[in-house]
Amino acid sequence: MPRYRLLLEYDGAPFRGWQRQENGPSVQEAVEEAAFAFAGERTTVEGAGRTDTGVHALGQAAHLDLATAREPRRVRMGLNFHLARIVRGRVSVLDCVEAAPDFHARFSATGRRYLYRILNRPSPPAIGRGRVWWIPQALDAAAMAEAARALEGRHDFTSFRAAGCQARSPLRTLDSLTVERHGDGITVRADARSFLHRQVRNMVGTLAEVGRGRRGPDFPRRALAARDRAAAGPVAPAHGLYLEAVLYGDRESARR
Amino acid sequence: MPRYRLLLEYDGAPFRGWQRQENGPSVQEAVEEAAFAFAGERTTVEGAGRTDTGVHALGQAAHLDLATAREPRRVRMGLNFHLARIVRGRVSVLDCVEAAPDFHARFSATGRRYLYRILNRPSPPAIGRGRVWWIPQALDAAAMAEAARALEGRHDFTSFRAAGCQARSPLRTLDSLTVERHGDGITVRADARSFLHRQVRNMVGTLAEVGRGRRGPDFPRRALAARDRAAAGPVAPAHGLYLEAVLYGDRESARR
Repeated sequence: MPRYRLLLEYDGAPFRGWQRQENGPSVQEAVEEAAFAFAGERTTVEGAGRTDTGVHALGQAAHLDLATAREPRRVRMGLNFHLARIVRGRVSVLDCVEAAPDFHARFSATGRRYLYRILNRPSPPAIGRGRVWWIPQALDAAAMAEAARALEGRHDFTSFRAAGCQARSPLRTLDSLTVERHGDGITVRADARSFLHRQVRNMVGTLAEVGRGRRGPDFPRRALAARDRAAAGPVAPAHGLYLEAVLYGDRESARR
Repeated sequence: MPRYRLLLEYDGAPFRGWQRQENGPSVQEAVEEAAFAFAGERTTVEGAGRTDTGVHALGQAAHLDLATAREPRRVRMGLNFHLARIVRGRVSVLDCVEAAPDFHARFSATGRRYLYRILNRPSPPAIGRGRVWWIPQALDAAAMAEAARALEGRHDFTSFRAAGCQARSPLRTLDSLTVERHGDGITVRADARSFLHRQVRNMVGTLAEVGRGRRGPDFPRRALAARDRAAAGPVAPAHGLYLEAVLYGDRESARR
């Protein structure tokens, strides 16, 4: 039974996140429906990251098994053909390769990279609507970048995890957290083996408080030490967040 | 009666173009409705470029008169407040400045710059859906760039104008037409004092034929010489086109 690894891009807006839900459309369900339409088989599509409601992906990784061997290129094209119809192209399969039988999109992953996009200008986005977090007040991106460094490394991220987070341990190693300004755009990138539920959005919301000047540059460090969600900043909105890449050993399952 | 110059960004998808129409929503109408809601006055908003149905803008310029003098910043914020409601933020006023009484967004303009975005990869866009022309076959961007040079300069652009074009003369001076590849994106930029109806989209459609290898690099030059619309390539779709900037003398009414 051949296994395929998929690289997926999606617009998270119409979905209740990656994972199949009783109460609304999910990306997983969309890809599974497309696989059924294409191959005539009911199969489970396992994703590397369980993105939340409204969160986008530029490079989500997933795997699925098909009873009959097919050319990976045909699988990609077949899934895209049906995704165009099922979810009006809001999910796109960027790549499909045959994977080893023991490959697992979630458990084999050695790293995840998230990108958070802020639009920092007085006027709201018309073209980027629903793709960026619009903050009209001028942000100090250099102060945000400096403050972010305190979160890098191995820490107890209790202050940055959602109330409903299922992870057994609040300990995570944040490999890097960078903030860059490009004109009126600010991008935050976070790299780790894995993240707690809403960790990236809670970190970005905390950094934005520093950028606005409401809090000093030591705010993230102090929030971390408090081990209390109430000590950190508010959660940043889902529509600015993108799962950019999933890493497997040396290989990166990303489009760039 | 103070006059204001506006810099506008818009998502062209829901509009029948810039100009007020009997048979559908227009960007002009949206801004005029917002001005009425804000200032309680019926005023005409004149745009620099009459963008077509579905064409976007990153830097459209426009002007309007208001009976009462108001702080330009208040005008911008007031218009955006009402545009959020009237067209769900699909039009955004990026800048507002007071203009001289003889300033006219259309007649004072000394140049227009259009940007055309092509996504050139095997899989369709999920994030960029409705914002780029997706061409799955590999394009030779270098051949397109070379071919584009034949269109630069002063020419009779009959082969590149729409059947319904109202311009008296088909002569136009194309200051530059450049093609650049950035990863799987190809951008075409066109600069001129003014353009004929659908000239940019007809030029892009013609260059795409060269990029695909269906036509040689001399195709645009030969199409130009034929002075016949049938001699050039098909029109490129509206949703890849952006009015990027309008120039007034030395000053550029663009966001970057």
